[in-house]
Amino acid sequence: MPNFRLTLSYDGSRYNGWQRQGNTPNTIQEKLETALGRILEQGVDAAGSGRTDAGVHARMQTVSFRAKTDMSAEEILALLRRYLPEDIGAEALSEAPPRFHARLSCTGKSYLYRVWNSGAPCVFDRKYVLRVPEPLDIEAMRAASAALCGEHDFAAFAIVRGKKSTVRRIDGIEIFREGPEVRFLLSGNGFLYNMARIITGTLLEVGRGHVDAEEISAILASRDRRRAGPTAEAKGLCLWETRYE
Amino acid sequence: MPNFRLTLSYDGSRYNGWQRQGNTPNTIQEKLETALGRILEQGVDAAGSGRTDAGVHARMQTVSFRAKTDMSAEEILALLRRYLPEDIGAEALSEAPPRFHARLSCTGKSYLYRVWNSGAPCVFDRKYVLRVPEPLDIEAMRAASAALCGEHDFAAFAIVRGKKSTVRRIDGIEIFREGPEVRFLLSGNGFLYNMARIITGTLLEVGRGHVDAEEISAILASRDRRRAGPTAEAKGLCLWETRYE
Repeated sequence: MPNFRLTLSYDGSRYNGWQRQGNTPNTIQEKLETALGRILEQGVDAAGSGRTDAGVHARMQTVSFRAKTDMSAEEILALLRRYLPEDIGAEALSEAPPRFHARLSCTGKSYLYRVWNSGAPCVFDRKYVLRVPEPLDIEAMRAASAALCGEHDFAAFAIVRGKKSTVRRIDGIEIFREGPEVRFLLSGNGFLYNMARIITGTLLEVGRGHVDAEEISAILASRDRRRAGPTAEAKGLCLWETRYE
Repeated sequence: MPNFRLTLSYDGSRYNGWQRQGNTPNTIQEKLETALGRILEQGVDAAGSGRTDAGVHARMQTVSFRAKTDMSAEEILALLRRYLPEDIGAEALSEAPPRFHARLSCTGKSYLYRVWNSGAPCVFDRKYVLRVPEPLDIEAMRAASAALCGEHDFAAFAIVRGKKSTVRRIDGIEIFREGPEVRFLLSGNGFLYNMARIITGTLLEVGRGHVDAEEISAILASRDRRRAGPTAEAKGLCLWETRYE
């Protein structure tokens, strides 16, 4: 049965996140599986590289699925572009090796968090940025982020559900100004539930001068969610890249 | 009575254009005048540099209004940013010379039209671009646009209402690729109703090879709206700049 690899982009504004869930309507996975079901005339299970929360966007979400079909990837892609709503984009589709799996084969991901750091309005970007008009200390945020890089137990920076390992590796956090914005590009081998948003929310507290950069190591060691900063709003976050060997 | 000059941006998607009109709800002028009325506690007439059609956006719309007030421009601006909906942005406000009027003093304008010229999806830009997946001949469109530059009677490229002059001066039409987009930047001393959209719609017909670039002069001379191309969709258009002496 052919295996496919799909690259999706989406504006998460009006969705309840990636993952199909019992009675919760309007998830991206459900929209995709419905479109694939119509095109391929069979039930299709689409695996994403990972979940994205309600309201989070994706520039590059990778998805894999298997289907019994004689249609080429090109034909399926053309139909997907016709059937998907205009806030979910089928960027690319190709046949994949039989063992490729979007979640299990994923070796790394990057998330971009956009902060509108200006008193001026952000009319055209309003659905994709968090507004923080106060001055932000970039150097302090960079110092704080250094303490998060490497392999750590990120329990303090996540909503922990179940008993799975909370150890992850952060490969880098780039923080830079881009016009009126401050952007955070977080790369790692995987992210726990809410982790990218809690890390950003905590770094913003450092940027505002409410938390010392030196405290980050102690917060990490505490494994206590209450010691980290608030969860930054979903709409500023975008799944930027998914990496495979 | 102090005179003010305001720079606005807006996402026109959900509005019935700039101009307040009898019973038509949801115009940008009405939203602005309501906000100014609350702030200044008096009726305010806000004059725009010109109308924008329903669905057309603005990066820089200039507005003037007079009001009896002791409040500083800075105070009014801060309140406007609080009272205006998030798809209308108060970019700047200053006191203006007594004779300044956003429409009468305006010496030139530029409109940007964005065309998504790719088969790929345009998830994040979908409200701001027209999709044209077919190849477009940029050189042919540039040749056609040359015939439109200068002072002409643009009756063929406008919806003509009333008996006012239909002579306008186009100072330049730049056509360029920008990533997956083709952009049209139209500059002139003024634009008739639908003129920017009809010019773009006609140039796109040239780009597709349906109309010869050499026909443009004859279409212009005909003063016959039926000879020009279709009116390009509102959502691709943005009032880019308004100029004053």
